[in-house]
Amino acid sequence: MADPFSFRLTATDGAARAGEMMTAHGIVHTPAFMPVGTQGSVKGVHHDDVRAAGTELLLANTYHLMLRPGAERVAALGGLHEFMRWPYPILTDSGGFQVMSLAALRKVTEDGVTFRSHLDGAMVELSPERAMQVQILLGSDIAMQLDECVRLPAAGDELERAMRLSLRWAERCKRAFEDAAADRAMFGIVQGGDRQELREQSARALVDIGFDGYAIGGLAVGEKQEAMLAVVESTAAMLPADRPRYLMGVGMPADVLAAIERGVDMFDCVLPTRNGRHGLAFTRLGAINMKNARHADDPRPLDGESRCPAARDFSRAYLHHLFRSGETLGGTLLSLVNLYYYQDLVAGARVAIAAGRFAEHAAQTRAQWQSKQDIEE
Amino acid sequence: MADPFSFRLTATDGAARAGEMMTAHGIVHTPAFMPVGTQGSVKGVHHDDVRAAGTELLLANTYHLMLRPGAERVAALGGLHEFMRWPYPILTDSGGFQVMSLAALRKVTEDGVTFRSHLDGAMVELSPERAMQVQILLGSDIAMQLDECVRLPAAGDELERAMRLSLRWAERCKRAFEDAAADRAMFGIVQGGDRQELREQSARALVDIGFDGYAIGGLAVGEKQEAMLAVVESTAAMLPADRPRYLMGVGMPADVLAAIERGVDMFDCVLPTRNGRHGLAFTRLGAINMKNARHADDPRPLDGESRCPAARDFSRAYLHHLFRSGETLGGTLLSLVNLYYYQDLVAGARVAIAAGRFAEHAAQTRAQWQSKQDIEE
Repeated sequence: MADPFSFRLTATDGAARAGEMMTAHGIVHTPAFMPVGTQGSVKGVHHDDVRAAGTELLLANTYHLMLRPGAERVAALGGLHEFMRWPYPILTDSGGFQVMSLAALRKVTEDGVTFRSHLDGAMVELSPERAMQVQILLGSDIAMQLDECVRLPAAGDELERAMRLSLRWAERCKRAFEDAAADRAMFGIVQGGDRQELREQSARALVDIGFDGYAIGGLAVGEKQEAMLAVVESTAAMLPADRPRYLMGVGMPADVLAAIERGVDMFDCVLPTRNGRHGLAFTRLGAINMKNARHADDPRPLDGESRCPAARDFSRAYLHHLFRSGETLGGTLLSLVNLYYYQDLVAGARVAIAAGRFAEHAAQTRAQWQSKQDIEE
Repeated sequence: MADPFSFRLTATDGAARAGEMMTAHGIVHTPAFMPVGTQGSVKGVHHDDVRAAGTELLLANTYHLMLRPGAERVAALGGLHEFMRWPYPILTDSGGFQVMSLAALRKVTEDGVTFRSHLDGAMVELSPERAMQVQILLGSDIAMQLDECVRLPAAGDELERAMRLSLRWAERCKRAFEDAAADRAMFGIVQGGDRQELREQSARALVDIGFDGYAIGGLAVGEKQEAMLAVVESTAAMLPADRPRYLMGVGMPADVLAAIERGVDMFDCVLPTRNGRHGLAFTRLGAINMKNARHADDPRPLDGESRCPAARDFSRAYLHHLFRSGETLGGTLLSLVNLYYYQDLVAGARVAIAAGRFAEHAAQTRAQWQSKQDIEE
């Protein structure tokens, strides 16, 4: 399956891995971080800047795009790459997660999920087959199976029911994807909540079905970091070494670093742009809340050593002023700062893994987050 | 006065003029269009893009900046050029216009205007002397006198009262500006509403006082285009040929073109960015409302021949989708399209004036606005 897609490891260091995914739209170096282009746009940031930050793979939300502008329309306009004018690799989620979090009146059956659109109230059906069809219409390089994601904490039988349903959907998704002769990649999603034995059953069954890559889903949904990392560590160890591993919806820089340490290759999260819009900047020296009044007279840049022009060129006083004044440029600039930060975080990990010194690198990175003397005074 | 500031005409064509202003922060070719950086940011657009559009002179609002972050704070941070990281010429208005339009409980006396800040309710005094002090603290290349702008229609005695007060303030402003040994330029503002005889008295008295340039104020405040242009034409003719002429707050592309034809050299307006945020694109072929549903399936760019990458690179379907989805990138892209459009409008005028064919150029430009067959089907 998926001829133009391939993955190979280029280095390992403990459980941490560096690799390369080849797609029809170019190469993706792993560990990779995907900014989220929810509705065909990374919020507030121009594509050119998303790319300049170092982004090789973008995530787009199937749920949003199927409702507006519609998958058939995007296909008629040449597919999502052409529609967005993003000629680089794109991964689409299945839509299942947003159905659970955004749609009203959702009803999950064996067949799929029926929900009321949050836009116009229309009833929409999303079956495993339709989820694949939509992603094929969008033309993403990597499609995700439809799954049911359960918020934690949850009872064991509820987690097991959702996990088994997700497995049956995984089989149907794979069949639908193959039937459509799609030449792109498709990933299965390990579910099972915080239950080790459920995660194990899910992972084994998915590997038996066989996918181009494997995601760890159903995390970052309310559980503690410790619990999340325990699941990540044990689940990653059950997945085949020669396939990429994707931890969905994660996360804070510390989570990304810890998950790389446990063998994860891919991440997506809205935090760089969402936090950027809300005034929080991620820097080498930790997070800085630019809305804080202490920045009002501070002529220093956010980080004079950053690769990001916005972090180097503007004073903290000016960035603070933009947020205080409600100027959207503030959110755009901090989103950029944060996108560069996340891309540099995974790029730094790739280099360290290749050099066989990831543990040391991770320790240094964490130590720097703690040493805020330069930024907090 | 104002050593580093100079202006020279490079060509005239009928009443239309092309020229060059030299300032401490570089050259400004006229006719010039100033985007409005209200609170130290052209709304939604990165400075680099404002510059790339062809902007040589930026307008910043004294009213907004004196209230937040405060003129003394900006001065302590190195002045507005340094604060914004906009190293090119800046013109500041006096704050008077926003006091009239935004502040509550304003009271105009001989001494100045007292108003309640729209931000925190504090009472603030703005005298001619303080208006100059604030602009000197901001460090703009061109400062404007404090004036009283009356909304039209207005009675003749009210227009005369405000015009005479503005003249007395003009004298005080000039004295304050000279006393501060400011090495920048200062413009007087002709008032008098739609009354020819009042405009004439105002213009003559200001020329007697002597300024580096002259603005035509109190227009684009509710009157018809015809009435505005009549005042512009007669007022421009009364102003010295060797000083730049600035039509404040104007306007639509048709207004800009008509005012250039009548001898105006400088313009400022929020329309390119405000309309851009609201989905209206200015193009060679007229204005296009990108929110209109007819664009939803249109793969064509906004204008394949535009110098603006956003007008060339993205489909109308995509731009429409961004507006329908409430993605701020849509407003940013159309603001860019419009800023490029306005800069190309004045650049085209400059070339035509130098070539002695401005009338023909203006007629062609207007004819193109009418020929919407390509864009409206």
